[in-house]
Amino acid sequence: MLYGSIEAGGTKFVCAIGNEDLEIVERVSYPTTTPEETMSSVIEFFSQYQEELVAIGVGSFGPIDIHKDSETYGYITSTPKLAWQNFDFVGTLKKSFDVPVAWTTDVNAAAYGEYVFGNGKGLSSVVYYTIGTGVGGGALQDGRFIEGFSHPEMGHMMIVPHSDDDFKGNCPFHGNCLEGMAAGPAIEKRSGRKGQDIPADDPIWAIEAEYIAQCAYNTTLMLSPDVIIFGGGVMKQRHMVEKVHQAFKRLLNNYVKTPSLDKYIVTPALEDNAGTLGCLALAKNAELHAH
Amino acid sequence: MLYGSIEAGGTKFVCAIGNEDLEIVERVSYPTTTPEETMSSVIEFFSQYQEELVAIGVGSFGPIDIHKDSETYGYITSTPKLAWQNFDFVGTLKKSFDVPVAWTTDVNAAAYGEYVFGNGKGLSSVVYYTIGTGVGGGALQDGRFIEGFSHPEMGHMMIVPHSDDDFKGNCPFHGNCLEGMAAGPAIEKRSGRKGQDIPADDPIWAIEAEYIAQCAYNTTLMLSPDVIIFGGGVMKQRHMVEKVHQAFKRLLNNYVKTPSLDKYIVTPALEDNAGTLGCLALAKNAELHAH
Repeated sequence: MLYGSIEAGGTKFVCAIGNEDLEIVERVSYPTTTPEETMSSVIEFFSQYQEELVAIGVGSFGPIDIHKDSETYGYITSTPKLAWQNFDFVGTLKKSFDVPVAWTTDVNAAAYGEYVFGNGKGLSSVVYYTIGTGVGGGALQDGRFIEGFSHPEMGHMMIVPHSDDDFKGNCPFHGNCLEGMAAGPAIEKRSGRKGQDIPADDPIWAIEAEYIAQCAYNTTLMLSPDVIIFGGGVMKQRHMVEKVHQAFKRLLNNYVKTPSLDKYIVTPALEDNAGTLGCLALAKNAELHAH
Repeated sequence: MLYGSIEAGGTKFVCAIGNEDLEIVERVSYPTTTPEETMSSVIEFFSQYQEELVAIGVGSFGPIDIHKDSETYGYITSTPKLAWQNFDFVGTLKKSFDVPVAWTTDVNAAAYGEYVFGNGKGLSSVVYYTIGTGVGGGALQDGRFIEGFSHPEMGHMMIVPHSDDDFKGNCPFHGNCLEGMAAGPAIEKRSGRKGQDIPADDPIWAIEAEYIAQCAYNTTLMLSPDVIIFGGGVMKQRHMVEKVHQAFKRLLNNYVKTPSLDKYIVTPALEDNAGTLGCLALAKNAELHAH
């Protein structure tokens, strides 16, 4: 029995095969070009395992349609990537593979991976953010994703500009929302350098930490989760977690008693595997619930 | 078979009895003084119905301890109302009434009332805010409250000051958080008048609407709920809903497609009964789950 995982990102698709214990047995990646091209590669990859493949879990860039009773369930909807607008992702998979397909956002899949295997293990309420070329967030409570009319778009929450920051923000919709101020491209526009080339003592990191701490603050007051996990490129700067803790403590001002910060605001235990492992776990769930 | 409801607020306790159809058959209210005094009145009231009383639902001011495995489950914890700090609310009720007690926050109870009987009926994800002497929020998804290390404290989310507003905010913890800028006392300090005495065309309402719209914006991006219900004194100004819709539309800038605003950002269908009806419905649930 094998499970399939597709992490469908804006620049690449990571496909993997997992065994019954959800161990990754093979992994490949393909550039995100057109649905025809990319999905052909994806289908060819999984076809090798067709006899043993019992379910596929997909974590996709969005926005996506998650409503099972909708005519466009399983579609990528209004993405700025024109070739992928209104693409029937789940339907395309189902044409080649007659197996249950779990369908959620890329950040929800990573949240789920951390919930099952990582820093959310054993906890009830888990929130996962990725801070990279964009900012995205997903949350779950007792294994169910937080959602309603659609999946959340937490990366676009409002933030208050830092007093030393005159950058106007570059979100095409909201200007200086969290993504507009704190994602990789905002760091690059502000400083003319890529984040990984900026030394740890540069003042830009205090500004960045302030915005991530505001995100953690709002998340704490809106969801009171058991853990907030920050993944993505920016948090690979190992000095950031401590800076975020300090800024968060100042903002919260002891208003509520959170779990201790070294367990509450963390980076992913699974590092870059959170999404793939989450998709495999979701595939296994989908298979169990199909019976 | 009768159900009891206690809406425990900072200025008064509203106690009610409901029948099997959750219709309110009697209601009284007592001022919030000390636990000894107020709870004696509460217990005396319910004692009249002791033979038929099968469960009690409580929606309390907070913070409260909601963790069933905690030693202080059922307590009001770190409230600024000193007499009520560390008061064992559920334990005190249980000493007089050997019935299941449902225990949640006042705003969660109101959210639940709207979910069962009001503007959240038939929907999966419901958020309720009250904007009055303070700002509080509660949310539920498929009948379960959103919570983790504790219940949310949504009223203290960050907001971005309106360009025409030089008020510094009066939250003792966070200064210019939502509660510090938009609750009744903030309106009064800013204008020297009570909200109900300020005419609908006063510019202060555009500022107030902007803050409530920011709250709706963040709620939309964090939870994507099916409905956001704004109760409390401020929203009794009937002109406010339309002002909030306009400001929300501008802030969201068509980033996500919400339900139509007249169904998405609304006032409570149950008006001031949301909390009492929510407590009765929670009591009925607690009784059903006790078997």
